[in-house]
Amino acid sequence: MSVADLVEGVLSHNRRYLARLISMIEDEDGRALEALSLLYKHTGKAHIIGVTGPPGSGKSSLVTKLTAEFRKRSKTIGIICVDPSSPFTGGALLGDRIRMQEHSLDDEVYVRSMGTRGHLGGLSRATSDAVRAIDAFGKDVIFVETVGTGQSEVEVIDIAHTVIVTDVPGSGDDIQAIKAGIMEIADIFVVNKSDLPGIEKKVAEINAMLDIDSRERVWRPPVLLTNSRSGEGIPELLDTILAHYEYLKESGDLQKKGLQRSREELQDLMKYKLTQELSLKLRDKPEYEEAIRQIAKREIDPYTVAEQLIAEFLFSMSR
Amino acid sequence: MSVADLVEGVLSHNRRYLARLISMIEDEDGRALEALSLLYKHTGKAHIIGVTGPPGSGKSSLVTKLTAEFRKRSKTIGIICVDPSSPFTGGALLGDRIRMQEHSLDDEVYVRSMGTRGHLGGLSRATSDAVRAIDAFGKDVIFVETVGTGQSEVEVIDIAHTVIVTDVPGSGDDIQAIKAGIMEIADIFVVNKSDLPGIEKKVAEINAMLDIDSRERVWRPPVLLTNSRSGEGIPELLDTILAHYEYLKESGDLQKKGLQRSREELQDLMKYKLTQELSLKLRDKPEYEEAIRQIAKREIDPYTVAEQLIAEFLFSMSR
Repeated sequence: MSVADLVEGVLSHNRRYLARLISMIEDEDGRALEALSLLYKHTGKAHIIGVTGPPGSGKSSLVTKLTAEFRKRSKTIGIICVDPSSPFTGGALLGDRIRMQEHSLDDEVYVRSMGTRGHLGGLSRATSDAVRAIDAFGKDVIFVETVGTGQSEVEVIDIAHTVIVTDVPGSGDDIQAIKAGIMEIADIFVVNKSDLPGIEKKVAEINAMLDIDSRERVWRPPVLLTNSRSGEGIPELLDTILAHYEYLKESGDLQKKGLQRSREELQDLMKYKLTQELSLKLRDKPEYEEAIRQIAKREIDPYTVAEQLIAEFLFSMSR
Repeated sequence: MSVADLVEGVLSHNRRYLARLISMIEDEDGRALEALSLLYKHTGKAHIIGVTGPPGSGKSSLVTKLTAEFRKRSKTIGIICVDPSSPFTGGALLGDRIRMQEHSLDDEVYVRSMGTRGHLGGLSRATSDAVRAIDAFGKDVIFVETVGTGQSEVEVIDIAHTVIVTDVPGSGDDIQAIKAGIMEIADIFVVNKSDLPGIEKKVAEINAMLDIDSRERVWRPPVLLTNSRSGEGIPELLDTILAHYEYLKESGDLQKKGLQRSREELQDLMKYKLTQELSLKLRDKPEYEEAIRQIAKREIDPYTVAEQLIAEFLFSMSR
């Protein structure tokens, strides 16, 4: 399949071409970057919504319900579910299967899981490119859902305009720490399963954390209650999501975020390309293999060797 | 503080110097790499044990109990607790406080938390360097504990010789997916809290997963039961950890792991240094800022710009 076909297929809303392009992104096929380069000017239209939170806080069911609500309002939807994955079990596990059940017959909903394996550029690189592909394809709203832990997940969610953080009542120290890492990226808090006891306390807790947050800001993240089973609170959540998007546009923050995002992406792409070049140069170089053996034996140290190899690499690239 | 003082302090087992060096590693202070370069030949002696598993599976209490057991056998201990952290709450949350209670008066136990913020080289780079510092300091055993989710956490655990994966009975889809991502890196499975119901089923589940694993291997990860409160199963777990280390030595796998580790580390250091050079070059360059603005406006695409800037960068570095 040629790059031109791929671009043409995506722009003519052919789902098979979109799926193909995202697979190429995952496989780090060089044609994917060429296609994305051509598709770039058709992007920037979708409202990207990140959904994160600790395990068990109901992210998937929330996205499903929000999708149904957006569909009622005639919006088209893309969903990227970022899953911890594994060569052992064969890849991304969730997302697709669960959500496909409710939206599988709806052509206006495109669902895709992305795993964490083998991306030279990292998962955030691949996710960002997949979101871009769906944006060029023409979906109005794109959800990016991820379990909220660790640096890579925060990077993944960084591409969103509006970040929803889901929370659960109670739980252990690990969960507290996970939440601490994602509290500050929230634009909207959702306490899901609002029929459980301890909800009022949970809302008060989040508000107390927001009160001690010293950063100046106009948009204070609201704390909403939802029930993914009954659907309670979902229309109100959607209205709040739209209100946040309006706020971003009117305040100029959307533009600021766009600039910030472009800066990060450019840096990210440059790192990716440099690393690729470096890997190509070093492949099958006997001195390189010998250096690794000496490092393992503690005869030389990796810091000094890295310094030397970088100097050689830069010299060699200039010729 | 000079690099020579730092190196001297660490080699003479002064804990204050060790703490200082790890802080410099976290701050990406250039002296840290110089010190590590000089300390490198004093490393490679510690047995590095990774402990990971889903939230709530009792990693911290397991490490505490194992530490007590190792101390009975006269081993000195380092513990690095990798925590999701946050500028909002002020950094690493757990680990230290919890474990300090039990081992805070024991000079032979060194505990340190590491957060996830602001490392140009990523958390795995910083953690790997901190482990190295503790290794040079002379601890016999170093634990690296992390919540098992996401790519970055798997990278963190990659520096361990022996990986313990803790598991809990039951729980939702998120937890299943998290576990899927870490199953294959386990050398030993621990089902903690062995007084809870459903334990037998859990052990059978893990064994069933191991049965369908088609990779050829001599060491089949054993599944052990422990109770962190009563201490039940802890001596047996420690014996298994030591047996695994013996196995690594005798089979030649320890050497293979060392080579693999040296290769990854060298690549990682080179990436880190290249990225540093690139950041320095681009800082305050007006054309660069203008390119970012044009990307945000969709007038040019980031893929093409990255390509051009890399070419310029490599050219400029060669002069």
